[in-house]
Amino acid sequence: MITGKNQIGFSQSALGKTTFKTFNPILNTENKTLFFEASDDEINQAVALASQAFETYKTIDGAKKAIFLRAIADEILDLGDALIKMYCSESGLTETRAISERGRTIFQLQSFADLVAEGSWVEASIDTAIPNRQPIPKVDLRKMFVPLGPVVVFGASNFPLAYSTAGGDTAAAFAAGCPVIVKSHPMHAGTGELVSQAITKAAQKTGMPKGVFSNLNSSNYQVGSKLVSHPNIKAVGFTGSINGGRALLNLASQRPEPIPVFAEMGSVNPVVMLPQAAKQQAQKWAKAYADSITLGSGQFCTNPGLILGIKSEDLSKFIKTLADEIVKIKPTCMLHPNIIGAYESKKTSALAQDGLREVVSFSDAIPKNYGRQTVTTVEGVAFSNNPKLHQEVFGPFTMVVQCENSTQLETIISKLEGQLTGTILSENNDIESHQNIVSALQNRVGRLIFNGVSTGVEVCPSMQHGGPYPASTDSRFTAVGIHAIKRWVRPISFQNWPNNLLPDTLRNENPLNILRLVNNHNTRKTL
Amino acid sequence: MITGKNQIGFSQSALGKTTFKTFNPILNTENKTLFFEASDDEINQAVALASQAFETYKTIDGAKKAIFLRAIADEILDLGDALIKMYCSESGLTETRAISERGRTIFQLQSFADLVAEGSWVEASIDTAIPNRQPIPKVDLRKMFVPLGPVVVFGASNFPLAYSTAGGDTAAAFAAGCPVIVKSHPMHAGTGELVSQAITKAAQKTGMPKGVFSNLNSSNYQVGSKLVSHPNIKAVGFTGSINGGRALLNLASQRPEPIPVFAEMGSVNPVVMLPQAAKQQAQKWAKAYADSITLGSGQFCTNPGLILGIKSEDLSKFIKTLADEIVKIKPTCMLHPNIIGAYESKKTSALAQDGLREVVSFSDAIPKNYGRQTVTTVEGVAFSNNPKLHQEVFGPFTMVVQCENSTQLETIISKLEGQLTGTILSENNDIESHQNIVSALQNRVGRLIFNGVSTGVEVCPSMQHGGPYPASTDSRFTAVGIHAIKRWVRPISFQNWPNNLLPDTLRNENPLNILRLVNNHNTRKTL
Repeated sequence: MITGKNQIGFSQSALGKTTFKTFNPILNTENKTLFFEASDDEINQAVALASQAFETYKTIDGAKKAIFLRAIADEILDLGDALIKMYCSESGLTETRAISERGRTIFQLQSFADLVAEGSWVEASIDTAIPNRQPIPKVDLRKMFVPLGPVVVFGASNFPLAYSTAGGDTAAAFAAGCPVIVKSHPMHAGTGELVSQAITKAAQKTGMPKGVFSNLNSSNYQVGSKLVSHPNIKAVGFTGSINGGRALLNLASQRPEPIPVFAEMGSVNPVVMLPQAAKQQAQKWAKAYADSITLGSGQFCTNPGLILGIKSEDLSKFIKTLADEIVKIKPTCMLHPNIIGAYESKKTSALAQDGLREVVSFSDAIPKNYGRQTVTTVEGVAFSNNPKLHQEVFGPFTMVVQCENSTQLETIISKLEGQLTGTILSENNDIESHQNIVSALQNRVGRLIFNGVSTGVEVCPSMQHGGPYPASTDSRFTAVGIHAIKRWVRPISFQNWPNNLLPDTLRNENPLNILRLVNNHNTRKTL
Repeated sequence: MITGKNQIGFSQSALGKTTFKTFNPILNTENKTLFFEASDDEINQAVALASQAFETYKTIDGAKKAIFLRAIADEILDLGDALIKMYCSESGLTETRAISERGRTIFQLQSFADLVAEGSWVEASIDTAIPNRQPIPKVDLRKMFVPLGPVVVFGASNFPLAYSTAGGDTAAAFAAGCPVIVKSHPMHAGTGELVSQAITKAAQKTGMPKGVFSNLNSSNYQVGSKLVSHPNIKAVGFTGSINGGRALLNLASQRPEPIPVFAEMGSVNPVVMLPQAAKQQAQKWAKAYADSITLGSGQFCTNPGLILGIKSEDLSKFIKTLADEIVKIKPTCMLHPNIIGAYESKKTSALAQDGLREVVSFSDAIPKNYGRQTVTTVEGVAFSNNPKLHQEVFGPFTMVVQCENSTQLETIISKLEGQLTGTILSENNDIESHQNIVSALQNRVGRLIFNGVSTGVEVCPSMQHGGPYPASTDSRFTAVGIHAIKRWVRPISFQNWPNNLLPDTLRNENPLNILRLVNNHNTRKTL
């Protein structure tokens, strides 16, 4: 059961006067529940509770945080079909996708539970004293990560579960020891409320402080802006548009005390098709990319929006094959009329640019709110000279750039904006004679892919999800995988601290049996 | 021999029309050499060379980078007395200090050489493929750190060697694989030029690309601003005032592509004297703190500028003893007339605040440009209500705050700005009954010290030098110790990449024999 209310700690609250509804793009109609936007009082209450909660939550050990994270996973599963139905009614996405995304969400929560239960993630480092060192004694120093404080997480439109209320950012922040205030995404506020109830139940059942979590509704930017500007908020997680992410970054960096913003934003995920790949594997890659471009109606941050090749008959044949393959695919419903509106207008604007032409055509009609896939092509020089063609068209859209030669291809890559991923398609060791292209691509991306597609973001330690700006606001951190926990922590050193008063992590006895750097050697041994 | 010219890659250059001289505060006179401020052309040349150099320098292996770093250390030592004399003539600091700071600089270069020669610092992580995983195969993913690109390092007024031209920031950036452009500090431009010559020689002798290093002169903010705004610069290191650091942070975050700024700025380094320490160890701490406050004329970022205690006869006695001890200490020369001018004016402004009183008095005169040490005291409530008393007075100055009780002390601490360090002085387990104070202090600092002084920043892995804003602009990184390398890198993932084309770091054979996270286990084994 959803109420449309805000979750403030363990209480529900609806003090605000502004309301909104979510939208079912399949039925092309509004959903029934009225959501109450958080008022200033509610924002302040949530932050005050989070600040209080931080003082206890920061001291809770890894084992207890793991129990909390696993309880959230259990409570989410316990929501059963109600959650899946709500998800579909607010996103237009399929039940299969809903179930798979729920699986990913659960897996993320469990991964962080495992991480903090084991405990070595704090990167404990110990340098013992050398009292008789000349000319001055060496002091005992011990270092570990501690949480930053209360953080704000923004729900993402395109991942109502995995990158929203209890998604990767929230799971990582809870694992780190930070209370979380979610600014719920207005397109799926009902899904957000159900998940909030699950988190709240889990927090109550596992004895967490009541301000460890709040969920605030809002259909515009004001609640988010107030949260990011609040002096007691210490970091921000965001997944969404470049405009949205940059606005938050600007707000955060203009505060009296600037705070980090981890915004994962736009990316066209360039794919380089080397000559031998175009020659020998045109059919295979055309099929794979037709699928990848249209996956989830192209609404993935890793959607391949740009394919670069060297002009040739083989490349022309690949483009034709890609067009043939993509035409076969049934269009699917997009998330919301606003998303499809933006998709159509950006597509129109791109197609109005000199030299860009569409290579597919359709005669049949498609249902309301469905996204029509598109393949376009343009010459290297036209692409190179027109920054408008570098902009992401969020949806099932791709552009094949036909470069004059490998030098032009390298130059184009070196001038691309920062990207989440870059892919090389190569056959017969073609890549070995194009190392300059790989080197240029490496400077612009967070993840390099060989002979594959960029959609599909594995949740594992070796995943880097985040690239140079504007792919993300801070390329030094990942949004996916266990290392995402590092966004929410800072190191602190204890100098000459009494052993019995140190955190367990740093004690001589190593009671948690974690891996530590002791006098520059990695060990689990006691001192 | 110094020339006053800028070092642009391997060439010296003096195209600018503006010149300046450095100042000898001991002799109270200008030094002779005329320094040429870098022109716009020279700035652009240095950045262009750095960008070119990055393409090769980023691929140079750890062993070669180590040779380069050690060569820099050797060339600095090779400068011999000329460097020590230049240092003293531009800083007013003693020869002993010069030699000790040179030792620290050499040690830092060698520490980073050891780190990159060993190689595990890249945090290599490998997750191997599971082709038959259901419902979808798991891809092979491998992750490591790569350098950010060309960086700018600002020389620090108070550390002409250890945090300037070849100081901690430069050493860490070189180790990471980033070319460095130093904006030389105008107070010690001659020392900077000598060290630049050493770095250039080392780069030439060890076969580094010519743009790996440049050194630009400037007596005002324009050269620095242009460097930080240049699109090819990818990060900034700075040690200095809050105003200066914040201006750079603002510039960097307003760029079309925002970049990280690691500014280590102001800190008053609060010291909490618990009741039993005041009772039992007043004499010991008075002596230690008199020394610490006046060390290097108080011109350390870790200088203890704030001592907090609970009002009592013991605390009064401690204040009196501290005053007695500090009066005995001979004042020393400060760095520059501008520094002593700022010290005097900030001291005057602090002393004009209601409730603050000086507890020392002197009748003798001191030489020109020498810094007169001061101990002041104020009641908790007056301190609490007056933000002006929270501002750093850079120099041999401290303020003892006499709180009404432990609650007031805790509240004051919780409202302090971010600090590099926080110290607890405790006897007879007094600290155990004041855990609320420790918890509040931990939220505000990067390093907690038990029964010690904050001056003295050990160079070791467990050192955290950097705290919540404004102690530094990014509390998630340290400016001292090997982990400072992490400021200049970002992770990158390779997906499904051919083994023979992977960096050595990530290859199956583990040719560098480094510690890697392989399928979530730390190991040096091959795959």
